[in-house]
Amino acid sequence: MRCDTLWRNARLTTMVGDGLGVVDSGVVAQQGGRIVYAGPETGVELEPASVVDCEGRWITPGLIDCHTHLIYGGDRAAEFEQRLAGTSYEEIARAGGGIVSTMRATRASSEEALVDTALPRLDALIAEGVTTVEVKSGYGLSTADELKSLRAARALGVQRDVRVTTTFLGAHALPLEWAGDPDGYIALVCDEMIPAVAEAGLADAVDAFCEGIGFSAAQVARVFAAARRHGLPIKLHAEQLSNLHGAKIAAQHGALSADHLEWLDDAGIAAMAASGTVATLLPGAFYFTRETKLPPVDALRSAGVPIAVATDCNPGTSPLTSILLAMNMAATFFRLTVDECLRGVTVNAARALGLSDTIGTLEAGKACDLAIWDIERLAELVYRIGFNPLHQRIRNGR
Amino acid sequence: MRCDTLWRNARLTTMVGDGLGVVDSGVVAQQGGRIVYAGPETGVELEPASVVDCEGRWITPGLIDCHTHLIYGGDRAAEFEQRLAGTSYEEIARAGGGIVSTMRATRASSEEALVDTALPRLDALIAEGVTTVEVKSGYGLSTADELKSLRAARALGVQRDVRVTTTFLGAHALPLEWAGDPDGYIALVCDEMIPAVAEAGLADAVDAFCEGIGFSAAQVARVFAAARRHGLPIKLHAEQLSNLHGAKIAAQHGALSADHLEWLDDAGIAAMAASGTVATLLPGAFYFTRETKLPPVDALRSAGVPIAVATDCNPGTSPLTSILLAMNMAATFFRLTVDECLRGVTVNAARALGLSDTIGTLEAGKACDLAIWDIERLAELVYRIGFNPLHQRIRNGR
Ligand SMILES: [Zn+2]
Ligand SMILES: [Zn+2]
Repeated sequence: MRCDTLWRNARLTTMVGDGLGVVDSGVVAQQGGRIVYAGPETGVELEPASVVDCEGRWITPGLIDCHTHLIYGGDRAAEFEQRLAGTSYEEIARAGGGIVSTMRATRASSEEALVDTALPRLDALIAEGVTTVEVKSGYGLSTADELKSLRAARALGVQRDVRVTTTFLGAHALPLEWAGDPDGYIALVCDEMIPAVAEAGLADAVDAFCEGIGFSAAQVARVFAAARRHGLPIKLHAEQLSNLHGAKIAAQHGALSADHLEWLDDAGIAAMAASGTVATLLPGAFYFTRETKLPPVDALRSAGVPIAVATDCNPGTSPLTSILLAMNMAATFFRLTVDECLRGVTVNAARALGLSDTIGTLEAGKACDLAIWDIERLAELVYRIGFNPLHQRIRNGR
Repeated sequence: MRCDTLWRNARLTTMVGDGLGVVDSGVVAQQGGRIVYAGPETGVELEPASVVDCEGRWITPGLIDCHTHLIYGGDRAAEFEQRLAGTSYEEIARAGGGIVSTMRATRASSEEALVDTALPRLDALIAEGVTTVEVKSGYGLSTADELKSLRAARALGVQRDVRVTTTFLGAHALPLEWAGDPDGYIALVCDEMIPAVAEAGLADAVDAFCEGIGFSAAQVARVFAAARRHGLPIKLHAEQLSNLHGAKIAAQHGALSADHLEWLDDAGIAAMAASGTVATLLPGAFYFTRETKLPPVDALRSAGVPIAVATDCNPGTSPLTSILLAMNMAATFFRLTVDECLRGVTVNAARALGLSDTIGTLEAGKACDLAIWDIERLAELVYRIGFNPLHQRIRNGR
């Protein structure tokens, strides 16, 4: 078989099957940006144009951060500082802090400014071998500002060599001008924003925040129905702070993923298992908000719900730009195994984005997105804290 | 005043006084590797050989990681993986895991191998603006292997442009060959190791681990007496897992610092305040071991005990190589303020190493160790998780 590039003398985690699909003396071959072979070196005849000796290094699929809010204006460092100094959440909110401050700063930012401020965050992820990143809107909260945010998200994938998937999150929070009329705002989301976003081709999925401080399950169901009318897959921020049974409703609507899930109950787990909805765990938010309620990992595992792990990078509750640290936190706080963490940022993260056919595993036909690591043992990727052993990152074969 | 280099158009945290000593339109001037002036640009006449425009960036003193165990053989990633997969601590210990495995690997390593494996960890710290790092022995636990470890630690400061201070930690754990005779081992530490270390000039301080699984307060007091006989300052791992009143004994012996301190009581705090002993908090170990007992930060604050923050980088309980993340964890878990975190890795960390005359602040006479940051607001250094906004690191003026 002819190919452009052959990486040889490597150890692979193909992520094919239920486990890591480890191949000890492995090769990956690519042609035109796609993998044409990944597996044992023996038993395959390859005629590569160029050969890379990996000197025994590990190759994983390029990492996937399947839940981020990379695009926003301003930051919340000042608020963080004030809260540590003893200012109450209420005082900060009264002074225009919290998500309202991010919404204001996002609205006040040009598309270019949104891109520029997001790039350093994206670069931090890229430096750790991330080749695909999901980016949500949700701080504009007007039709124009949500479209602007999604255009900025798409632009990230032009400015950098990374696959960006975009998610419309108009139902993230109730903007001040709609105070007292959440149903009116949801009507705007469903009848104006989603059609506009769909027509412009700016979103790959639609998400919402189902929570007491977000939107009710009934409101979320309206958003899902509108998404379906426009052919867009759905996701949901569910059961982060309380149990509104959002995950169950998301699963019943065939959601790609339900995310956070600290308060998820057995009915929600059963519904997710039945629909094949991915459970995306976000330990950075758990950490930063000093949450103590743990997501039901054992029950998710028993039910066979696929588990993904992501940074949830956002200014208010998870200013985290390290997917490696997200894995370490998933292991430390949630007791995910090393294998679960690694599948959580590859094959299961791809599934959470509806991209199982394209990325997430090392197998013929997939995009040749690779992360090559200077490690002896895969567990080092999860065990170490604040360390980046990436040797090289390959995107579309280059 | 003539000087070699002038950094101008900067915002400074001089760390002079009780707070951060912020100077908004600041300059730093160095001559021969030492600061000759740091303060407002106005009101000083400088004749610099070269000028650096900092474009409004923040300059802090070079960061100081005042508690690490960077030198060790092997790693514990496999053990981490096994524990997540359900293997009990006892099973791992029976299989030769835990600190015993690190001791074996350290003894089996050459000095060169110890240096080579520590360099990537050191490089991660350096990349975040660390200019001084303390490195402990304590995994050799024989005279020859402790000397080897300290030589390796010293070698780190030759291989890299960083100030390394070394701490002899022979009383870290009881080696297997001394099982049942901790007092005999302590006699070896006091009568053979400390004299050998002192004669070779290999240690800047002596440390011990005062704990049920370490050594008793009485044994630690013998180590302190031996250190004093050889003119070496002392430190102590104290009150991490229980309250053996080690911090009080350390303070009574004039210790530079007592470290960990989750179980510290009021008598210990009073003793530390009286002796000026620094409280070094190690949130990485708190995190990685899933500790829930918080150190008494409010009481330390009220008593005026200086607080430092460090990584405790070690293979068993804190495989952390990010001083920025140590600050974020100190804020998140322990509710240190932004100012306390920043003083904890500069002026108070210098004090914990007995180096207050040399490093830790921006003032005339100190080494010109600087970290220059691409941030708008100092709080970003603490608020962000897994992000490194270092613009440039200066060591001894270069
Ligand atoms: Zn989110
Ligand atoms: Zn330690």
